[in-house]
Amino acid sequence: MNVHVTFSPSSLGSEHDLRRSTVVVVDTLRATSTIVTALMAGAREVVVAATIEEAVAIAHRLGTERTLLAGERGGMRISGFTLGNSPAEYTPEVVHGKTIVLTTSNGSATLLKARYAARTYCGALLNAEAVARRIAEDAPKDLLLLCAGSNGDFALEDVLGAGAILNALDTLAVTTALVPSDAARVAHGLFRELSGSLHSALASCDHGRALSGLGFADDIGYCARLNIDGAPVPTFVGSSIKVYQESGSASATARFA
Amino acid sequence: MNVHVTFSPSSLGSEHDLRRSTVVVVDTLRATSTIVTALMAGAREVVVAATIEEAVAIAHRLGTERTLLAGERGGMRISGFTLGNSPAEYTPEVVHGKTIVLTTSNGSATLLKARYAARTYCGALLNAEAVARRIAEDAPKDLLLLCAGSNGDFALEDVLGAGAILNALDTLAVTTALVPSDAARVAHGLFRELSGSLHSALASCDHGRALSGLGFADDIGYCARLNIDGAPVPTFVGSSIKVYQESGSASATARFA
Repeated sequence: MNVHVTFSPSSLGSEHDLRRSTVVVVDTLRATSTIVTALMAGAREVVVAATIEEAVAIAHRLGTERTLLAGERGGMRISGFTLGNSPAEYTPEVVHGKTIVLTTSNGSATLLKARYAARTYCGALLNAEAVARRIAEDAPKDLLLLCAGSNGDFALEDVLGAGAILNALDTLAVTTALVPSDAARVAHGLFRELSGSLHSALASCDHGRALSGLGFADDIGYCARLNIDGAPVPTFVGSSIKVYQESGSASATARFA
Repeated sequence: MNVHVTFSPSSLGSEHDLRRSTVVVVDTLRATSTIVTALMAGAREVVVAATIEEAVAIAHRLGTERTLLAGERGGMRISGFTLGNSPAEYTPEVVHGKTIVLTTSNGSATLLKARYAARTYCGALLNAEAVARRIAEDAPKDLLLLCAGSNGDFALEDVLGAGAILNALDTLAVTTALVPSDAARVAHGLFRELSGSLHSALASCDHGRALSGLGFADDIGYCARLNIDGAPVPTFVGSSIKVYQESGSASATARFA
């Protein structure tokens, strides 16, 4: 298995290359952590929108009864939206059975790029081992851990998320040998170095400090948790993200059932 | 001093942002190592060209007597060019007094982007400490270490070069405190981790293995040398790269003297 980490989607090659790969999108603070949390809390699915306008249009099309508009710009909830991008908001009471239409600053664009991959999962520290187990079963020839990064650049928390998945993968019995790229080796090394202090690493990184300044310090502590019990592996099924299910495809609940 | 490392020029913001920064371009294997070596061997200047055609046109315009066409594609010397991109070729016998017109796969485009900065230097392991001393004297408000990377993506050897410069800078008496970004902290940490084994790190990284396969294993050993005696700090003066000189501007030898 060729294993590569891309530190931001701006470093990504053409969509063509993605079609043969299994891709894990990592946006630790906070989009993929929020998606994991939303699905764990019983949300039906997450539909990703590139822009605020697109999110509103999708929610309108799906009907307001079962959809919740969600997302952030500059870290803060978008005006008029029900939910921001803080996983603390995604409680079962709020999201159970709902379709979440989500648009965020960095995660959305990365997820929308990645959906052209052979398989696309959402990874975070919260579900690192679950994602690694999924990958070990898939045993793809090419694995790409795609960090959302920050405005096209490196973000430490995403590289740590990717490193956590690689570290878990490394300890599992994978049928094929792992062939890491330079970037994959760096991500893995960085995780091993900081695995004992994930909370302080996330709190002191560029994005963590910005989030604390906005009043989201609790989110950092939550997103720094490694392998929470029952964490799902969110995956694209058509145009929406659902919980991966062992049948080989994700939840097949009809959208308009 | 805000210190940032960008792992490839694809992550770079607009040229506007560069205008207020001091930028160090790092292409350890091999463009900036080669430029350091060429100027140390007495080359008059290095003119960077984006394409083979542009290199040929520049050399034609400057006159064949004092110019040497140089560069690589796929690691190998360009057909019809006098020099490739191996520093071993840039001996005083070959390059003294000459203008080198250089085009390479990743370094050229990065250097051409960076020349819009307030100041632009070429950094490598070979001259890391010399570059750090230069920066410490400049004491810019914003410092960007810009890795050439590999096809828009991360390359370990460039991050090590950037880390070597940061490590040297960290030990110098800089008048302002260094404020490193996430990426700068990672580059610095990576250098400290691997500083005792730079040769093997470069030999085992993606690009190092490719170069060995092409017969350039000796270049790796050379480019892995840290702080060679008398290493110059190449800097852009107008459209060409020359040795930085203490007068405050680089060598002012007229091009057509």
